[in-house]
Amino acid sequence: MELLKKRILEDGRVEEGNILKVDNFLNHQLDIELLDAIGKEFAKLFADLGITRILTIEASGIAIASLTALQMKVPVVFAKKTQSRNLDKDTWDAEVFSFTKDTTYSVRVSKRYMDSNDKVLIIDDFLANGQACVGLKKIVENAGAELMGVGIVIEKSFQKGASILEEAGVNLKSLARLASIHDGQIEFVD
Amino acid sequence: MELLKKRILEDGRVEEGNILKVDNFLNHQLDIELLDAIGKEFAKLFADLGITRILTIEASGIAIASLTALQMKVPVVFAKKTQSRNLDKDTWDAEVFSFTKDTTYSVRVSKRYMDSNDKVLIIDDFLANGQACVGLKKIVENAGAELMGVGIVIEKSFQKGASILEEAGVNLKSLARLASIHDGQIEFVD
Repeated sequence: MELLKKRILEDGRVEEGNILKVDNFLNHQLDIELLDAIGKEFAKLFADLGITRILTIEASGIAIASLTALQMKVPVVFAKKTQSRNLDKDTWDAEVFSFTKDTTYSVRVSKRYMDSNDKVLIIDDFLANGQACVGLKKIVENAGAELMGVGIVIEKSFQKGASILEEAGVNLKSLARLASIHDGQIEFVD
Repeated sequence: MELLKKRILEDGRVEEGNILKVDNFLNHQLDIELLDAIGKEFAKLFADLGITRILTIEASGIAIASLTALQMKVPVVFAKKTQSRNLDKDTWDAEVFSFTKDTTYSVRVSKRYMDSNDKVLIIDDFLANGQACVGLKKIVENAGAELMGVGIVIEKSFQKGASILEEAGVNLKSLARLASIHDGQIEFVD
């Protein structure tokens, strides 16, 4: 998606350790006009699959999933990372290992909001090691639902998440694929 | 907002301790069509105030703020509750006391995304004791920005948040105001 790549080059900041920060438009401040364009792109990429529900994970996935859902006219469910009073006791759970924080956390979706009739689209902002996405995929499987696709805004193709998902037969579409980040320079795949 | 009140009566569940749960449409599963209507209502209520930025707090406020921002054509910034790698070191901070969890936590916004030129609209899903909202208000003040209004989806008018904000001179608009929840019955103000 050219608009997105352009924005990453313009407003993404590469910080110490070759970390790409996109908090200007994607995960702290949200450029809603860009996110609306992203939502329209996902709706086009995953059209005609009979999707009944979009699944994402708090917090950065919520805005993107919501703007995609606005186009697809389906509800969003966001998986919770912490045990919350707002959440039912009866949940589909999965464990997620975080390489960044070197800890395992649980992600949960109430059983009320996913079942075997669902055709699910997972949406998230980043795909790096793929652990969060594998956790969401497990929730879909535990619910007996069908995973129709995974839509990612920025894929770090030099990390293993994309290949893990593709090897598992997932219909993965990423809007920007980073081949490398070296010395503050971003290179896209292709 | 009649559509919202109707939905609360239809799909809200009152659980033990007279806790209203709206995870069917507002804070776990998101009914995007309803949230879009809510966004349009907020955009109307806070029109012509020259708002430059919408401030909310992760996670439940994000979808509502995003759909409001889509109408108002301004960016959203969501305050983070945890120290995150995605967040700058240089932040506007406020402490928030949670009555539910009996703990104090920090909320943070990068200084990059709020300054003295901003006219800010705060959006959140619930207003009960008002502590989160007072924290967001403090961030706006610390940034030297101007707080133009606070838009709340569900106000528990029997708790003290609304009066705290009104006594502080805040332009508060709540789309549904709960007068009481007793024996599983919801009564609205008016």
